[in-house]
Amino acid sequence: MYSHDTRIRVCYGDVDQMGFVYYGNYLKFYEMARGESMRALGLSYREMEERGVMMPVVKAELNYKKPAHYDDVITVRTIVEKMPQGVRMDFRYEVYDEKGQLLNHGFSQLAFVKKDGLTPCRCPEYLSALLEPYFA
Amino acid sequence: MYSHDTRIRVCYGDVDQMGFVYYGNYLKFYEMARGESMRALGLSYREMEERGVMMPVVKAELNYKKPAHYDDVITVRTIVEKMPQGVRMDFRYEVYDEKGQLLNHGFSQLAFVKKDGLTPCRCPEYLSALLEPYFA
Amino acid sequence: MYSHDTRIRVCYGDVDQMGFVYYGNYLKFYEMARGESMRALGLSYREMEERGVMMPVVKAELNYKKPAHYDDVITVRTIVEKMPQGVRMDFRYEVYDEKGQLLNHGFSQLAFVKKDGLTPCRCPEYLSALLEPYFA
Amino acid sequence: MYSHDTRIRVCYGDVDQMGFVYYGNYLKFYEMARGESMRALGLSYREMEERGVMMPVVKAELNYKKPAHYDDVITVRTIVEKMPQGVRMDFRYEVYDEKGQLLNHGFSQLAFVKKDGLTPCRCPEYLSALLEPYFA
Repeated sequence: MYSHDTRIRVCYGDVDQMGFVYYGNYLKFYEMARGESMRALGLSYREMEERGVMMPVVKAELNYKKPAHYDDVITVRTIVEKMPQGVRMDFRYEVYDEKGQLLNHGFSQLAFVKKDGLTPCRCPEYLSALLEPYFA
Repeated sequence: MYSHDTRIRVCYGDVDQMGFVYYGNYLKFYEMARGESMRALGLSYREMEERGVMMPVVKAELNYKKPAHYDDVITVRTIVEKMPQGVRMDFRYEVYDEKGQLLNHGFSQLAFVKKDGLTPCRCPEYLSALLEPYFA
Repeated sequence: MYSHDTRIRVCYGDVDQMGFVYYGNYLKFYEMARGESMRALGLSYREMEERGVMMPVVKAELNYKKPAHYDDVITVRTIVEKMPQGVRMDFRYEVYDEKGQLLNHGFSQLAFVKKDGLTPCRCPEYLSALLEPYFA
Repeated sequence: MYSHDTRIRVCYGDVDQMGFVYYGNYLKFYEMARGESMRALGLSYREMEERGVMMPVVKAELNYKKPAHYDDVITVRTIVEKMPQGVRMDFRYEVYDEKGQLLNHGFSQLAFVKKDGLTPCRCPEYLSALLEPYFA
């Protein structure tokens, strides 16, 4: 298993008139955390795109347990539970407040796609190589 | 079953550097379409809040089949498949392009909550009354 | 002078915890209205990009007079006051509520840039030709 | 003069199909940086709202010099050049890339408003007291 924590400060524009983070913004938080988890692993997503592989999201799920508020610092835990199989990769997310309470959890599945031609491809070896030590 | 279609023009800010609508923006499209579906039913969501009931989202799922692009007009079909049970209400969504191709489909579950005190409550009678004719 | 009105429904995600449209979202409203004003003129901005000319914003100003709220229908008036000079084009914006009250007004200056190479260029003739009747 | 620097990582959702940060997102960056500058001064904006004073933006200006890209770390410098006069407070912003190049600069004017009744008020003494040492 590979896991990485990212801290995010909730800004004013993220919150709706209920005083809660707008439900759509969690997908942005997931993306920010997923990006940081890849950087911490040793390969930024930007580099992947520069090397010719994109990872569009094909599926996402979100569960809202408790609201986050303006100015809260939330921690988004990104979890890779298994090595990418075939042309897809799964990520799980857990969002905690500063007391460690679970606010939200979710999931996304991303596809590997060649930038030229947008055809599906397998997980690049340079990414597999970085993940393997966590699944030995 | 109750179903309503909403047309949305994709703006420049909705699209990412892949040239596709950013995955997080579909939850905004779902919300816009859900709001229009309630208005068409005879009760705007704004009115519900003014009458003291909020509907925070507790669960959402999204499936991305084909990308939408800048300036596309997409149609978001909002579907209520069954009468609200207890303190929750389910909505399904289907997003089509102008050729009628399915781009995205999803689901959200909303809770009924009293604005004062944020305690769960059952679906208000004034909403049930509007839905019932579609489930007779 | 060329002027065009675009109506926009304020969605839940656009509003902050003051219950007002978040100040940053007006630039999105300006963009949506600018796009519709160009389409009404006879040339969508999408077409311009497809023909090789991009129009990045180089300057913007916004004045907030009264707040817009969730579910309001606002009208954004886009105004072109003079023919594009050199490599720039100016747009003015006025945002009204349904009673005709001015909520917000602003300005943006856009550059003409060749998509290949990102070098500045003059206003394309096919756009000038559409604007000229309004400035005769 | 009071000045504070905030570093922000550009996320995928912030960037448009030109591959540049969407122009509307700079107002969000300004807000994030303004919030951090107040926290560094000793008073978070959240606290101000809790103590009954809101600061809606009444005017904003933005100048776009060079684009920021996905995954860039930008530095937003927030500058208070003079003590708040009357019921308004001015902030200036400068956005730099990691090489120290100026990408964007701007300005916003905020009003002091009582949360109850939304009437204008003067800068609270507890904020003036924190600012004064920088203007002695």
